[in-house]
Formats: sequence, C-alpha cells, structure tokens
Amino acid sequence: MSDPTAAILVIGNEILSGRTQDTNSNTLARFLAGLGITLSEIRVVADDEAAIVAALNALRARYTYVFTTGGIGPTHDDITTDAVAAAFAVAIEFHPEAMALLAARYAERGEVFNPMRQRMARVPHGASLIKNPVSVAPGFQLANVFVLAGVPSVLAAMLDDLAPRLARGAVMHVITLAAPVAEGDIAARLAAIQQDHARVAIGSYPYYRPEGYGVQLVARGSDKVAVEAAANAIEDLLRETGAQPERLGV
Amino acid sequence: MSDPTAAILVIGNEILSGRTQDTNSNTLARFLAGLGITLSEIRVVADDEAAIVAALNALRARYTYVFTTGGIGPTHDDITTDAVAAAFAVAIEFHPEAMALLAARYAERGEVFNPMRQRMARVPHGASLIKNPVSVAPGFQLANVFVLAGVPSVLAAMLDDLAPRLARGAVMHVITLAAPVAEGDIAARLAAIQQDHARVAIGSYPYYRPEGYGVQLVARGSDKVAVEAAANAIEDLLRETGAQPERLGV
Repeated sequence: MSDPTAAILVIGNEILSGRTQDTNSNTLARFLAGLGITLSEIRVVADDEAAIVAALNALRARYTYVFTTGGIGPTHDDITTDAVAAAFAVAIEFHPEAMALLAARYAERGEVFNPMRQRMARVPHGASLIKNPVSVAPGFQLANVFVLAGVPSVLAAMLDDLAPRLARGAVMHVITLAAPVAEGDIAARLAAIQQDHARVAIGSYPYYRPEGYGVQLVARGSDKVAVEAAANAIEDLLRETGAQPERLGV
Repeated sequence: MSDPTAAILVIGNEILSGRTQDTNSNTLARFLAGLGITLSEIRVVADDEAAIVAALNALRARYTYVFTTGGIGPTHDDITTDAVAAAFAVAIEFHPEAMALLAARYAERGEVFNPMRQRMARVPHGASLIKNPVSVAPGFQLANVFVLAGVPSVLAAMLDDLAPRLARGAVMHVITLAAPVAEGDIAARLAAIQQDHARVAIGSYPYYRPEGYGVQLVARGSDKVAVEAAANAIEDLLRETGAQPERLGV
C-alpha cells in the first residue's frame, strides 16, 4: 500500500491580496510530514463559491486527504461550508452537538447566540465535527475532506482532534548539510550522487546573505540507512571543496 | 476591458515538506496588487515535471499572467525550464545573451563556467530574458508565463524588469478598521452593509490574542469613494457597539 497523500486548499481573499502571509499551509505541512503523509499540492483560491467547488472537487478526487482552511466563521464572507456542501451535492443542516456547544459558550460569556453565530453550527449532511478548544466553533470532516479554521491558533488547535482519524505513512528521515560553497561548483557531482542514491530525494537550496553565499543540501527519504548513506556522500563532496559542512538534524 | 488576472505557481518540495515557509507568493501578491492585477489563484506543486506541466497548462489558459517561482538553478533538481518547454511543446536552446552574461560573471569571479552552470542559460524557444541583478542567472518570459527564481531576494529583484511588460488594472483602495469587538455581534449588520455596498468587498478577520479578541474589517474596491462610504458605514457600526475603531490605511 502506498503512503497517503494530501492537498491543502486555502480559502482567502486576504492571502491573494497580499494583506496576510499564509502560515497555515506551513503548519499543516509540518503536521503531515510528522505523520508520514505526503503533501502533494497546495492551492489558494478566493472567497468565491465556484472557485472553491472546482478546486475541492479536483483535489478530493486526486489525494487521500484534503484540508481546507478559512471561511467558517459567522460573517457573510464565510462561505466554505456552503461551498463544501455544493461540491458534495448534499444539504446543509444544523448539527445538534455544535448547536449545544456554541449555545453553552455564548451563555457562559453572556453573549447572545444570534442567527449569525448559529451559522457556525451548520455542516453538510453526513459531516462529523472537529473540536476547537480555542474558540469552540467546530470544524468538520466530510469523507476525505477536513474543514478547518483560518485563524492560525485555531487551526493549530484543531489538529489534535484530527490526527487519530488519519492513516499514517512512512515518516521521512531528513539530513541537511550546509556549507559556504557555490552550487555550480558541486552540481555535476551532486547529480551523480542523486543517481547513485535513487531512493533518496536530494534538494539543493542556495542562499545569498550579507555575510556570503552558500548552499543547503537536503537528503530526504523513508529509509534511514539510505538517507545516511546519501548524506555521507554529500558530506564527502563538500569536504573535497575544502569546506567544513555543518550537519543539521532537519 | 476587464482587469488583468494572474496566478502563481510555486515549484518546491521544500515548501510541501514544511521545511521552508513560502514568502515569494506574498511578495508577488503585493507586487500585483500595486499594479491592479487580480491574483486569482496560487498553487504549490512538487519538483515533478508532470505536476508542473499540468498545473502550468491549466493556469496559463485561464489567467492573463502566470508567475512561477523556483527550480531554475544549476543543480539536478532544477527542472522548471524543462517543464515549461514541455508544457509549451517547444525545444530548449542556449540563449546567447544569457550565455554571455553568465560567462562574464564567472570569469570576473575566477570561477569555472562549467556545463551545470551553463544549464542556467537554457530557455525554451521563443523566450525573452528577465534580468537578475543579484546573481545574474536570468529568469525568462514565454508568452504569458514569467519564470522567476525561488531565492526570495532574487525573486524580488527580478520584478523591476518585469513590471513594464504587464498590463495594469484598476488599483484597489483598501481601508481596514480594527476594534475589540466579537465578530458574531456585528455579523448581521455587516452583511447588510455588504449588500448596500455591492461594489466593495468586505472581509471580516477575527483575531485571538493574549490581550483579548477582536476583528479587523477590510473594505476593498477599485472605486475610492465607494470604499470610503463602506468604511464609514462599518465605522459607524463599530462605534454603535461602544468600541473605538482604529482606522488603518491598508
């Protein structure tokens, strides 16, 4: 059985306008890496039902899991629930447990549980809730789609309730080697190392900093011994240039 | 004529693995917003030719412009140029100007202009170069596709050479109002304000911070007077809750 795959669908005009730097994708990417789930694609679309439906249907057919972020609050621009229901062609209903959780929260705070807040208890038919320990309003799971909040602290807090529902794959072992070496000086021999270590993915990431340029070389794979062997070969190559490579755990 | 649209295609295993936080999309989003070009979609795909080709062909057919980032260096994992050529079904050739620029750079630094470095002078047939004032190796434009570096400082430096080639649209006016108000308390009346100001997009972004919760309300549109009117209506709504809204330029 091959490892599970995933896509992220970020729903947010604020990301596309440049107003907000998306950090939820990175939070999810690290979470998925820790479970051995291969994140294959990220898409960001506008708060537009047709765009959300098209992207969601493309992604959920293609990957084991899809995680959406954003658009599940109480305001008029929160249209994710409706878009997910439209993508699955199912009705929307008020989820009794979500209603009870939200009613209790607002009662406790002396705030009115008005119709706009009740919108946050709406889920597509067949969905199960995802707990939100920060601000109560839940996310939901429908088939292989997990609908999460856009506020970063809320998204992060929802992952605990999610994790047990996911199949796990082989966790990747990663070794990074950094050295003040020009990429182009080692590129040919690095390509040969990649050929000799086909089960390891070797990435080369140059940097240009005020104190000088250099490269980070990343060996990544599910076989720890193979990753070690590739990293050792890369380390030897860097030493032959006269550099003192720094080995980073990740 | 409607405003030009754009998509970003980020090519990078390092983003999908969670190793690197993508900031290039935000840099490009702000750049495009400044030109009045509507950024409609962002996709991140792996360093995989089939994935790049499929995404690029979908995006370039749909939007006025596509900007790719990453994968144009000298190493074996830099496959963007080949993928773009495959997407357009054109051959790859060494660009004489790129060859001359790179040869001069390496001569100046006393570094050898080896075959892997020469790879950075390869472009799909018909492409024009995009200048790189940081590290010389150019990006390129082919039809409506702009192929840019992945290193953030290099990507940012390439935008100067790009800007004059792009059609401009109506620049958006944006007013943000922040207040320590619960989203759910104003959601119904905010929806009514959105209905009354249909030419303005009103977004509601709650936050939860150690010092308390609140909301940022963003009015965005091409008609300055209409944006002002919507912002004034939102400001009145926030004041009616007893809050002192803070008006932010962006």
